[in-house]
Amino acid sequence: MRKNIAILCSGGDVSGMNPALKHFVEYALKNSLNPFFVYDGYEGLIDDKIDKASYCDVAGIINKGGTKIGSSRSRRFMQKKYRAIAKQNLDHHNIEMLVVLGGDGSFRGMDIFYKEHGVKFCGIPSTIDNDIAGTSYCLGVDTSLNIIRTAIDAIRDTASSFGRAFVIETMGRECGYLALVSALTSGAELCLIPEVPYNLEQYEESFKNQIAAGRKYFLAIVSEGIKEDVREIAQWFEEKVGIEARVTILGHMQRGGNPTVYDRLMAYKFVSHAIDGLLNEQHDSVICYNDGGFTHKSIQDVAFQKYQLDSELLCHLQDLYNV
Amino acid sequence: MRKNIAILCSGGDVSGMNPALKHFVEYALKNSLNPFFVYDGYEGLIDDKIDKASYCDVAGIINKGGTKIGSSRSRRFMQKKYRAIAKQNLDHHNIEMLVVLGGDGSFRGMDIFYKEHGVKFCGIPSTIDNDIAGTSYCLGVDTSLNIIRTAIDAIRDTASSFGRAFVIETMGRECGYLALVSALTSGAELCLIPEVPYNLEQYEESFKNQIAAGRKYFLAIVSEGIKEDVREIAQWFEEKVGIEARVTILGHMQRGGNPTVYDRLMAYKFVSHAIDGLLNEQHDSVICYNDGGFTHKSIQDVAFQKYQLDSELLCHLQDLYNV
Amino acid sequence: MRKNIAILCSGGDVSGMNPALKHFVEYALKNSLNPFFVYDGYEGLIDDKIDKASYCDVAGIINKGGTKIGSSRSRRFMQKKYRAIAKQNLDHHNIEMLVVLGGDGSFRGMDIFYKEHGVKFCGIPSTIDNDIAGTSYCLGVDTSLNIIRTAIDAIRDTASSFGRAFVIETMGRECGYLALVSALTSGAELCLIPEVPYNLEQYEESFKNQIAAGRKYFLAIVSEGIKEDVREIAQWFEEKVGIEARVTILGHMQRGGNPTVYDRLMAYKFVSHAIDGLLNEQHDSVICYNDGGFTHKSIQDVAFQKYQLDSELLCHLQDLYNV
Amino acid sequence: MRKNIAILCSGGDVSGMNPALKHFVEYALKNSLNPFFVYDGYEGLIDDKIDKASYCDVAGIINKGGTKIGSSRSRRFMQKKYRAIAKQNLDHHNIEMLVVLGGDGSFRGMDIFYKEHGVKFCGIPSTIDNDIAGTSYCLGVDTSLNIIRTAIDAIRDTASSFGRAFVIETMGRECGYLALVSALTSGAELCLIPEVPYNLEQYEESFKNQIAAGRKYFLAIVSEGIKEDVREIAQWFEEKVGIEARVTILGHMQRGGNPTVYDRLMAYKFVSHAIDGLLNEQHDSVICYNDGGFTHKSIQDVAFQKYQLDSELLCHLQDLYNV
Repeated sequence: MRKNIAILCSGGDVSGMNPALKHFVEYALKNSLNPFFVYDGYEGLIDDKIDKASYCDVAGIINKGGTKIGSSRSRRFMQKKYRAIAKQNLDHHNIEMLVVLGGDGSFRGMDIFYKEHGVKFCGIPSTIDNDIAGTSYCLGVDTSLNIIRTAIDAIRDTASSFGRAFVIETMGRECGYLALVSALTSGAELCLIPEVPYNLEQYEESFKNQIAAGRKYFLAIVSEGIKEDVREIAQWFEEKVGIEARVTILGHMQRGGNPTVYDRLMAYKFVSHAIDGLLNEQHDSVICYNDGGFTHKSIQDVAFQKYQLDSELLCHLQDLYNV
Repeated sequence: MRKNIAILCSGGDVSGMNPALKHFVEYALKNSLNPFFVYDGYEGLIDDKIDKASYCDVAGIINKGGTKIGSSRSRRFMQKKYRAIAKQNLDHHNIEMLVVLGGDGSFRGMDIFYKEHGVKFCGIPSTIDNDIAGTSYCLGVDTSLNIIRTAIDAIRDTASSFGRAFVIETMGRECGYLALVSALTSGAELCLIPEVPYNLEQYEESFKNQIAAGRKYFLAIVSEGIKEDVREIAQWFEEKVGIEARVTILGHMQRGGNPTVYDRLMAYKFVSHAIDGLLNEQHDSVICYNDGGFTHKSIQDVAFQKYQLDSELLCHLQDLYNV
Repeated sequence: MRKNIAILCSGGDVSGMNPALKHFVEYALKNSLNPFFVYDGYEGLIDDKIDKASYCDVAGIINKGGTKIGSSRSRRFMQKKYRAIAKQNLDHHNIEMLVVLGGDGSFRGMDIFYKEHGVKFCGIPSTIDNDIAGTSYCLGVDTSLNIIRTAIDAIRDTASSFGRAFVIETMGRECGYLALVSALTSGAELCLIPEVPYNLEQYEESFKNQIAAGRKYFLAIVSEGIKEDVREIAQWFEEKVGIEARVTILGHMQRGGNPTVYDRLMAYKFVSHAIDGLLNEQHDSVICYNDGGFTHKSIQDVAFQKYQLDSELLCHLQDLYNV
Repeated sequence: MRKNIAILCSGGDVSGMNPALKHFVEYALKNSLNPFFVYDGYEGLIDDKIDKASYCDVAGIINKGGTKIGSSRSRRFMQKKYRAIAKQNLDHHNIEMLVVLGGDGSFRGMDIFYKEHGVKFCGIPSTIDNDIAGTSYCLGVDTSLNIIRTAIDAIRDTASSFGRAFVIETMGRECGYLALVSALTSGAELCLIPEVPYNLEQYEESFKNQIAAGRKYFLAIVSEGIKEDVREIAQWFEEKVGIEARVTILGHMQRGGNPTVYDRLMAYKFVSHAIDGLLNEQHDSVICYNDGGFTHKSIQDVAFQKYQLDSELLCHLQDLYNV
C-alpha cells in the first residue's frame, strides 16, 4: 500500500516555498507516496486542515512568492494537549511522514512531537535571515538578497545628485547576513551588523575627509538587529559627519518577490533530499546544505546551536569597513 | 550661423532625465542647433561647468536612471550677483536658449533670470511628486510608481501568512499623488494623503469587523506629507485595531530605477516640444501635458499656483476608502 | 431588485485583465449590481461556464498577468445556433449586461449578438497590438512595451563587446506600434514596420560608413508584420552591411508580466466607464480612450475601421530613420 | 616597490564582469599592487590599450551588465608576432601579472603566452554557457538564468489562454546547462539538450493524451545546440502533437541584465582568490569553484577537457522527461 506523506510551512513564509510544494507533490508521486498538504502550519495540524494534494494544486505556482498552503506561528502546538490532537489528525489521514519548511523554532517543536508521538519528519531550513546553525543556506535568502539589491541599485542611481547619506535597514533579526552580503555586493560605504561591535566615531574622521575630497554620497546598510535604531544612524550622519541623511526601511518587501532560479533549484534539491531521507531511516532530522552538498543533521546540531556568520564573509567586512 | 542651446537639470533628479538628454542632443542637431550640457544645475551655470554635447555623450544612457549631467539645488542662484555671473558664462559660450528639467522652484528662478537677462528658456516639469500646477504629468512619475508597485507586490506575496498590517510610506511632499495611485493600483485597504482630512477612528470599527470576519492582513499606503508619522499609523493598528503592524519606508528608491517606456516617450515628447517652442517665440514658458497634448504655459500659471489633485482620482479615493 | 452584470475575456489575454476583473467586482457591487464571471470567453457563454463573483474571487490577482477567468477564440459563437444557446444561458442567470475585454473581432461578434438578442454590452479594447481604431490605447500595451524594453536593455548591455547587429522581432500583427515605440525608446538604429514601406538598400551605405567610423553594433527592431522574415533582415546585415547578426524573437513573453501601474489604472478607468455607460443607455458600444478622456463609440466606428498609427509617431520614425 | 597587475576580459562578455573589475581595483590596492585595465581584451594587449585604474574608474559600475573595459575575440593573439608585441606592451607598463576573465579558448591562448614569455596569469571562468571543465560555476550564469526565468514566467502567465505550445530557445552552444536548469525551475513539459539523445516520437503519444485529458499548453525549453532548429520543434508540435506552436528565441538578452547578487558575490570571491593565487606562486592557473570552495587548477585540467553536465542534474532530467 502507498504511504502518505505531508508537507507544511511554519513561521514566516519565504520565496521558494511554492516551488518546494510543487516538487514535493511530483517527487512524492514519483516515489509512490501519496502527497498531502497541511494548511496554515501547526495550526492546521491541530485544526485538521489537511488535504490530499495533486498536480492540479501546484500548477502555476512555481513562479509565485509566498506559500500557497499558508503558514503560521502556533502557540497551541507548544502545549501537549494540542500536539495530541495533531497526532490524531495525522493518524486519521494515515500520514506517517512530514516535511516541514521552517526555522529552528519550528524544528524544535517538531522534535518534541517526534519524541512524543513518533511522527517522522524532515526539516528544510527556510528563512530569509539565513541564521540557522548547521546549514550555510536557508531557502528564500537568494530571492531576498536580490530584492534588496534592486532597492539599493535604485537608490544608487539617484544618490549622487543629492549630496546625502542613504541609510538602509535590512531584516535579519540577530543575524547580519543579509546586511553584510548586501553591503559587499552593492559597494556600500558602511555596514553595521549585530555580530560585530562598531564604534561610529572611528568612521567620523574618515567620512569627513572623504566629503572634503569630493565624495557626494554614502550608502550605509544596517541590519535591524544592531543596537541603535536606523534613525539614530541617520542622525549621526547629519550631526557628526555633516551630511543630510535619508532613511529607507525595506521591511517585508524583503520577504516576497518571485523566487529566483537559485531558490527554485534549492527548493527542488532540499525537497528531494528530504523525501529521500525519510524513506531511508532519517526520522528526526534537518536537511542541510554545506560545501555544495546535502546532509541530514540532528535537531540538536541545528536548532540548539547558535548560528555563526561565515568567517570568510566576516574577513571581507573587516577588510572593507575596518572594523 | 548655428545657434547654441543648452540643457540642465535642477532640483532632485528623476528617471527620465537621461532619455531627455539623449533626445535633446539628437533633436537639437536635427534642428541645426549646437547642443550644450550645463553640469550640476544652476551651480554649474555659475561655475561655468558648460560643455558642448555630442552623440557620444549620450550613447548608452537611455536606459539609466538618474541624470548623467548631475543636478543641484542652488542657493547662490537666488542672489543677483551669481545670476550675473551665470549670464556671463552663457554669453561666453554664446548660448541663447536653455531647456530646464526641474520643478516649480527651478522655474521661478529661471523666470527671474529671464526677466533680468533675457535668457530664453523652456521648463520641463520633472519631479516624482507630480505636484506641479498646470500639467497633469511630470517626468519621472511613471517610473516611480512602478518601483513602488514592485515593492508593494512583494509585500503582498507574503502578507497573508503573517496576520499583520503593513504600513508603507511613499514620497510626495505635500502631494498625495504617488500614494493615491499606488493605493488604487495595489488594492490597498487604507490610503492617507495630505490633501484629504482623515479620522482614523472611522476605520477602527470596520477594520476590527473585517478581522473578525477573517481578514488576515491590511495594506496601508501613507504619503510622507500626512500629519502623523508612519510609525504612529503602525501604532494605531496595533493599539486600536489590534493587529501587529510593520513599517516600510521606501525612501529614495522611489527616485531611481531604469526609466519606463512611458517616461522615455514623455521625455522624448517634452524635449521636442520644448525646443520647438524656443524656436517659435516661446521665451519664458513651461511645456505642459494635459488631455493627451502639449501646450506652453507661462511661469505664472505653473509655478505660482498650487497643484490640485485630479478630481476623478479623489472620487476614487472617496469611493474606496469612504473619506 | 439588483440587476446582474457579467464580464468575459475574448481573444488573446493581456496583462491588465486581472486588475480589470478585480475592479469589475468592486464597482458592480458599489453600484448595486450582482457581478458574474463568464469563464473561457464566448466558449464559456455557450457552455454555461457562468458563475457569481465575489470579493474573494479577486483577492490577490491585481498584480498577476494573464486572466483568472480564461479567454478563448470561439468559432462556435460565429454560428447563430450557438449564440441562441448563449442567450439562453444568460437568461437562465438573469444577466442583462456584459462587459467584454477583447479586440475588434470580439466586438463584431458581440454586436451581432446584441442585434439578435438584445444583450447589452460594452467592449473594452484589450490587445497588446494597440491596433484598434477609435482608441489611442488598448489595455495591456504598456506592460508589453516594458517587457520589450527590459529585453532590449539587456541586449544593449552586452551589445558593444560583440561587434554585431541585433535584430529583435516584436509582435503586433499588421500594426507597427510596439516596434515603433520600442525603437524610439530604446534608441535603436533601425526600425521596420508594416505601415511604412522601406528599402534596405537605402541604409546600406550609411551603416557601412558608421562601421567605418567606429560604430560597434546595431540594434534593429522589426515588427512581425513586415514583408520579410526577421532572419532575412539578419542575413542582410551579414551579407550587405558586413557585420555578424543575431536574432531575438520575443514571442509570447510580450503578452505576460505583472501589469504595470499604467495598465492597472487604465483597467480601473475602462471598467468604471464601461459600467457607467451600461447603466446610462450605452447598449452596444466600446469605451475608448483619446486625448486623456473616455468616450463610448459605436461598434461601427471601432471594429469596422482600420487602425491608423499616430501621425506624430510616424513623424518621429521618419525623423529618426529617414524613411 | 609596488608591483603592477592588470585585468582584461576576453571573449563574450557576461554580467558580473563589472563587479569583478570593481573588486579587482580595490583588492589590488589593498594588497599594495597597482591595478591596470587592459581594454578590449587581447586586442588591447596588442594595441597597448592599457591604463592605470583607480577607484574613480569603478565607481557606479557594480550594478551594470556588460564590461566597462570591453572585450574581444582576437585572432591576432593566436600569432606569435602579435604576442611578442603584447609582451613588449606589458613590459613597458611593468606589468607582471594578469587576471583574465574569459572562457577556455582565452585560457589556452594565455597559457601559450605564459610559456613563451613568462607572463603570470590567473583565469576566471566567465561564460553564461557554464561549459568549462573543472569548475561547477562560471561567472554570469546566475544572471543569465534569471533573465531566462523572467521571460519564461511571462510566457507562463499567458500560456493557458492560448491552447498552444511555446518553444523557447536558450543559449549554451554545445552545453545544455542553461536549458536544463531553466526547464527544472520553470516546470517545463519538455527539455531538449545536446548532451542527451532524444526521440520526439516518444513524447508524441503522451502529449496527445495530456491534451485529451485537458492540458491546455506546453512549455518546451530547447538548447541552441540540439540537432534540430527550434522551428522544427515547433513544427513537430503542430504536425504530430496537433497543437499550435509559437517560437521564442531569447538570443543575446541572456547575456545582459544587472548582475544578480550571486554573480556579484562570485565576482568578489573569484577575484580575491585569483589575486591571492598570483601572489602565492600560482602562475598559470584557473581559479575554479567546486563543492563550495575555490581551488587553482592547471590549464590542462580546465581548458583541454570536455565539460560534463552535473550527473545529479542529468538524473533530474531523466526523472522529469523520461529520456
